[in-house]
Parts: sequence; C-alpha cells; structure tokens
Amino acid sequence: MLEKLKQEVYDANMLLPKYNLITFTWGNVSGIDREKGLFVIKPSGVDYEDLKPSDMVVVDLQGEKIEGDMNPSSDTETHRILYNNFPNIKGVVHTHSPWAVSFAQAGLDIPAAGTTHADTFYGSVPASRIMNEAEVVTEYEKQTGDVIVETFKKRNLDPDQIPAVLVNDHGPFTWGTSASDAVHNAVVLEEVAKMTYHSLQLNPHAIDMPQYLLDKHFLRKHGKNAYYGQIKH
Amino acid sequence: MLEKLKQEVYDANMLLPKYNLITFTWGNVSGIDREKGLFVIKPSGVDYEDLKPSDMVVVDLQGEKIEGDMNPSSDTETHRILYNNFPNIKGVVHTHSPWAVSFAQAGLDIPAAGTTHADTFYGSVPASRIMNEAEVVTEYEKQTGDVIVETFKKRNLDPDQIPAVLVNDHGPFTWGTSASDAVHNAVVLEEVAKMTYHSLQLNPHAIDMPQYLLDKHFLRKHGKNAYYGQIKH
Amino acid sequence: MLEKLKQEVYDANMLLPKYNLITFTWGNVSGIDREKGLFVIKPSGVDYEDLKPSDMVVVDLQGEKIEGDMNPSSDTETHRILYNNFPNIKGVVHTHSPWAVSFAQAGLDIPAAGTTHADTFYGSVPASRIMNEAEVVTEYEKQTGDVIVETFKKRNLDPDQIPAVLVNDHGPFTWGTSASDAVHNAVVLEEVAKMTYHSLQLNPHAIDMPQYLLDKHFLRKHGKNAYYGQIKH
Amino acid sequence: MLEKLKQEVYDANMLLPKYNLITFTWGNVSGIDREKGLFVIKPSGVDYEDLKPSDMVVVDLQGEKIEGDMNPSSDTETHRILYNNFPNIKGVVHTHSPWAVSFAQAGLDIPAAGTTHADTFYGSVPASRIMNEAEVVTEYEKQTGDVIVETFKKRNLDPDQIPAVLVNDHGPFTWGTSASDAVHNAVVLEEVAKMTYHSLQLNPHAIDMPQYLLDKHFLRKHGKNAYYGQIKH
Repeated sequence: MLEKLKQEVYDANMLLPKYNLITFTWGNVSGIDREKGLFVIKPSGVDYEDLKPSDMVVVDLQGEKIEGDMNPSSDTETHRILYNNFPNIKGVVHTHSPWAVSFAQAGLDIPAAGTTHADTFYGSVPASRIMNEAEVVTEYEKQTGDVIVETFKKRNLDPDQIPAVLVNDHGPFTWGTSASDAVHNAVVLEEVAKMTYHSLQLNPHAIDMPQYLLDKHFLRKHGKNAYYGQIKH
Repeated sequence: MLEKLKQEVYDANMLLPKYNLITFTWGNVSGIDREKGLFVIKPSGVDYEDLKPSDMVVVDLQGEKIEGDMNPSSDTETHRILYNNFPNIKGVVHTHSPWAVSFAQAGLDIPAAGTTHADTFYGSVPASRIMNEAEVVTEYEKQTGDVIVETFKKRNLDPDQIPAVLVNDHGPFTWGTSASDAVHNAVVLEEVAKMTYHSLQLNPHAIDMPQYLLDKHFLRKHGKNAYYGQIKH
Repeated sequence: MLEKLKQEVYDANMLLPKYNLITFTWGNVSGIDREKGLFVIKPSGVDYEDLKPSDMVVVDLQGEKIEGDMNPSSDTETHRILYNNFPNIKGVVHTHSPWAVSFAQAGLDIPAAGTTHADTFYGSVPASRIMNEAEVVTEYEKQTGDVIVETFKKRNLDPDQIPAVLVNDHGPFTWGTSASDAVHNAVVLEEVAKMTYHSLQLNPHAIDMPQYLLDKHFLRKHGKNAYYGQIKH
Repeated sequence: MLEKLKQEVYDANMLLPKYNLITFTWGNVSGIDREKGLFVIKPSGVDYEDLKPSDMVVVDLQGEKIEGDMNPSSDTETHRILYNNFPNIKGVVHTHSPWAVSFAQAGLDIPAAGTTHADTFYGSVPASRIMNEAEVVTEYEKQTGDVIVETFKKRNLDPDQIPAVLVNDHGPFTWGTSASDAVHNAVVLEEVAKMTYHSLQLNPHAIDMPQYLLDKHFLRKHGKNAYYGQIKH
C-alpha cells in the first residue's frame, strides 16, 4: 500500500545524508496521504545505507501501525501530533543537524537576520520552552509534539509560514508541503543557523532585519504575488 | 546569439557549486558583451544540475529580455544597474555564501586585515546601508543596485579596485573583468570573510593592516607595475 | 592468533579516517578478548592507507607484546590500564579529533547540553586534572590511564554510562562494548563537542539540560527499558 | 638537472590541495640540494592542475634563476633567506591556510596549548612583528625572510624545533627536513591553529600547557630519545 508515497518518503530520507544533515541514524522523514489519513515514516535506528523503500512503516493518525515489519521511528508520535494540528503540512523532518541544535541547546530562537532566512521563514524560528518533568516522563514523544503546537499557538505563529521549530535542549523539526519540501526547509534552517550564529558573534545588537524587507523576500517567493523562479500564476 | 558568451556564463555559473558558494539555486552569474550592450544571465530558480548553456537569458541594458525561454534571475535588475554604473566590469556574481552573508547580516564591512584580502581588494569590502521601505517596496532589485552604486560613490571607492559589496541584511555581490573573474572574486571574498571573522574574535583591536602593506600586495598583482605570476609587461 | 579480533580492530581503525576523526596517524583503536586476557592494537605511527589486519599487535594485560612485527601504539599502556580498571569495556579509541581536543586544551568538561549528548553519555564528559610532573616524566602513558581511572573514581562516574574522557591538554579517549562501539562513541563525542561549543558561545548560562530529560534519553536507548531502534527485549 | 628533487618538490606542492591548505594558487613549496647550493621551487601563479614536475624552477642561494622557463614563485626570496639562515632545513612551504592566517592577521602567537602542538612544535609558534614601510616598499619578499629570521633570533627560538612562523598580517611559513616534511608541518600548524582558536574562545586563561608535558611530547617524537612510531635508534 502507498507505494508511491513510500518511495517519496524513502527518497526524502536519503536526502538527509546527501545534505550532511545527519550523523549515523539521527534523523527521520515522514510524508502523509491526507485523503487516506495515513502517514509513512522511516523505521527506527536503521542505517541509511541499508534502508529500502519497502522498509517504510505506515501509521494512521491515531498512532496505530498499519503496515511494516519494523518499528517506526521513535519520533513517530511527534510527527503524528504535527500532522493532526497543522492541517496543511504533508511532510515532517527531524534531524540533529549541528547548527540548529546549537541554538536549541542554547534555548534561543533563530532571529530573522537576513534575506536567506526570509526567503523561507517568515519571522524568527522559535525555540520551544523546556519541557517539564511530567511531559518527559509520560508519553514523551507525543508531548514533544504538543509543546511544538503550544509554541505556535501561544506566540501566534503560522506553521505554514514558519515551517520549523527548535525543540529546547533537543533539536529541529521542520515540515512542508511534501516530504522533500520538509527536507528543503531543514537544509535552509541549518544554513541560516550557521550564518546567524556568526552574525551574532560579530554584532549581537540589532540583528533583526526590517519587517518590510522580511515581507518583501518571503512574499516574492510565497503566496499569490510570488514572482521568483519559473512559477506561472 | 551570443553563443560564446552564453557558454562562458554557463561555465561561470557552474563554478559556484564547484567552489561551495551556493546552496540549492541561491546564486547567479552574468556576463556582458559591451559592444552590443547585451548581457547574459542565469534563468531564475533552475537547479544547477539541470542547467544548460542554451538556458541562459539575454537581456539589454534597459532591462528588456532579448532572448530566452525562461525568466531571467530575479536579481537581473541589480546586475543591470551595476553594468550601467561600473563601466569597466564585464561579469557580475551574486551568492549567499555563508561567511560573507554573516558580515552582511551584521551590517559590517570586511576590513582589510591581511595580504589575502589585499591581493584582490584594495581596502575594506563595504557593507551598504540598510535599504529603506520605499526602496524595498518598489523596484526592489533595481534599488538594490542603486544602493550599491551609492555606497561606492559616497565612500569614494573604486569598483575596479574593490570588486565586491555586502548588501546589508542580504549578501554579497562581486564583479570583475569577466564572468569567471567575478566568480574568482566571490571565492576570495568568502575566504577572507572566514579568516577575518576569526581574526576579529581573537583580537578585535587594530585589525586593519598598514596602508603600505595593502598598497604593496594589491599593486604587485594589479596595474602596470604588477609582477606576480607569469604576466609579461 | 586472534585473527577475527585483528580484523575487527583493523576495521575499527579504518573508521577513524572515514569519520574524519584523524589527521595523519593521530589515532588508535584496540579491542580485547576478555576470555584470553589479550588485546589487539594498531601499530605505532603507521599510515592508515598502508595498514593491514596482519599488522595489528597482540598485547597482554600486563603490557607484554605477545605477537606482532611492529611496535604497538605508543598509547598502548593507556589502553591497558583502561581494560584493567573498566571490566565491562571491550574496545578503546584515542584520537586528536579537533572539537574534543578544544575542550581538553581548555581543561573543561563537555556539559550534557542536549539530547544528542544524552543519547550516548549519561552526564558531562569529564576533563581530567592536569597531570603533574612526576606522572609525566615516568611511565607517562600508564599514568595517563591512571589519571583517567582516578577521574571516574573521584567524581563517582560510571565508565559504562559515560564512555569517554578528555585528558587535560591532550585529547579524548573513548571506549565501548567493542572496538567499533568505541569508535561510535568517539564520533558522537566529536559531534556533541562541536554543538555544545557553539551553544556555550550563544548562551553560556544554564547550558545543562534537566536531569529528567537526560534520564529519559539515555534510558530509552540503554539498559533494560530501552525502546529505541529495532531492539527486542 | 635536479630531476629527482624537482619530482619531490612537485609532489610536495601537490599535497597542498590534497590537505586543503590552499585556494587557487595561494601556496608554494621548495626543496634544496644543500651540496649543490640550489633550490627548486614552484613557478608563480600556475594552477595546481596544470603543474608538471618539469615546470619547477631552479634558483641558487644568491637568488639567480639557474633553470626554468617560468618565473619562480613571487615568494622565492623569502624561501632563499630561510635556506641561508636556517642551515638544517631542506624544505620550505608558504600557504594562506585559513586558521593560521587568522592568527597572523590578529598578530598573535599560537600558544602551545596541548599535545597535538607539542608533538611537532616545541613552544609557541611565533607571530613576527609588523614589517615597517621601508621593509615593505623595497625588497619586500627578501625582507619578509629577514623579519622571520629576526623573530627567531630575538626570541631565542630554534627553527629546527619550531619549524613554523606566522608573518604578521600575512600568513604562515613552515619548513622541515625535506619538502614533504615542511608540508607535514604546515598541516599540523593549520590543525593546531583551529583547535587552539576554539580553546581560547572556551577558556582564554591558562591556555599554556605545562613545560614538562611539552618536553615529554616533543622529545618522545624528536631527538635521540624518541620512541614514537617504528623508529629504531
């Protein structure tokens, strides 16, 4: 079942080593079939070089494994919560990419410091609050999803316009309009984390870009007035 | 038309991934035929691995597309302004190379801190001022070119001797005597941005090199008294 | 003798260049046959590209060379002390991997700053005290082992749960349940050193993760209640 | 003439791109035949991929070109001064390797912060003073050599035990017992510059290692009591 989606999710997982986002097996990508309400995710702890499309595990939106010989990623519950709460997203990525983790461990947002950021993220990429003991001890991976959702709600952020979060003391999750789009956003996140780390070391003051420049760059690539690339409207 | 220049500009574009200056499609190179008053530029948002010489777009110095099936780079207007105002340049490059962007996001010049810098740039590489809202909202890419030109005029800098700029909160543009020379300058810029970032962290004071050492290194490679390499005078 | 172990130790040594942990010959891996009380280690100062499984040197737990044409690694005595004092370990690695060395030269522990760390190390990776002159002048490599053992005893650390140390002004040693597991831990150590260095630059305060999050991540991968990966209990 | 030495010097030059020490043509290696009083050096400004052993230029210790179709490296005079003043050295390397340049631009020594350093350099790698205008304007490359020699004399350093220098606001020169040994030392210099930069950021105080540990590591690899590697005495 879902052979095409399994292939897409497999391909998207294989982009993680291609773009140097992972060490060992520290990452996972999923993609969803919204009509069927089923998502496909990498199995837990399998080496990328041994991975096959048929290893992908199918899970429903209540968290039941529907198909697959192996355990799904230990982060499956986090993916599930994101699919349930962010209705427009069709792919989710988790990595421990080092620059994004550096901000996550510091508990700091990645501010929108330049146009590289603005082309993909319409504002700071938020760091979530530290999870409390009760959240960590019970249903940790589900609660990780819940705290991501809470972060976007409390700060009134639109997950379609800021498709990334830094889970505090942990690392990044990104999402997108497909599994491969979520990987794209993971690559951009790592790149802007690196750039903005260095900008902050050079000049910690006034790092935020003007709102009108953020608007310009985000909106020339996203939404109905976009004019970047070969897009026809 | 301009088949030879298209090939040169294509080749120069392909140097960007070779020298690790770009992520995805975040860069563009153009080259000009000064006699015909036409320049050739990469199409917008096309993957480097899919790019062909025949994809290059021909544009005139008034900004009209003269030939090409695809949209030219969204930064075409910036290239055009540079060709119109810097009469000796024959190639322009824009990238989001991460070390140069780090300075651009910090709004800081890259000071001339050593001979690696001086061999190519005859003084600090300037960061432009932050563009105002009117400039960003209307004809943004053209205004980006205008603010670069303004930076050189106001600070009395010679674009032939400092073939690079950091557009504030955005990233670098470089230029040169050909498309490939402009790429050369983009590589040097990224390298000196990296070195000088680290020098500034080690010792923020007295980072500028003596003027006579800057003179020596720039002039042993450039101008009528150059003696570096296999150049015959 | 010990042909299978020699192959394993050879393979594990060859992972050091694969994971970019070494420059030239600056690293060595050993593995032990606990039943025979013999360990196998890389010869001293041999290029990795010239290394063969048959070059591996066999040494006993009293430090006598049992088999091998070449001198064993100059760090053999340190490996021996670790095998004698940490009874559950079956592999040891020493490298000069640059991020771990940066902490070692600074004389600082690598704090447990996030889940990447917690998945492998159950607390800070300790930096040993500076060795005194007597320890360095006589039986230096043996004393290096002794000071590692002292570090774990004095600070009441469990080497099975924190399989790494930073020898002050020197560099990392890691160990594990096999030669290749010790290399795995060396890779993780380098990665968390890099991440946490940057987190400390961003936010030197409150870098330690909560104890309950450390517990959660370490224990979901290690021990009888582990549930990560395809492990069956 | 000197075909064997030309091949050695060619091979040593080709190690510079292999070890990522250079961008474009920013580096040169020479080697000397002490009996004949002639040294062989890379031509100026030639791409590494175009270089051939027969391109190497032969120069005598008075600075006269003895053989070769091309101009020798513009740094030839600096190499010559080093050969004339450091009688035991047989190879010289100059690069703009970025971590070493970062210290050179900051005008700071690289302190002996750990055993990686001590295995090759018996003390801090010195930064020379800034050259004065007269030195730069006239016979610049020769004067560069003179200021290196002065640095070692004034600070009472032994060039055989500290085979490297940072020319202020410029970059590193290293030397050794052969052209390839000088490249080895250039690689080590770049690696320790990187490590020690990060150690200094983590802990600027008390970065120097104890003298007895420096003695131990340098002397276990160098001199008549060395015991590292497969060396027989």
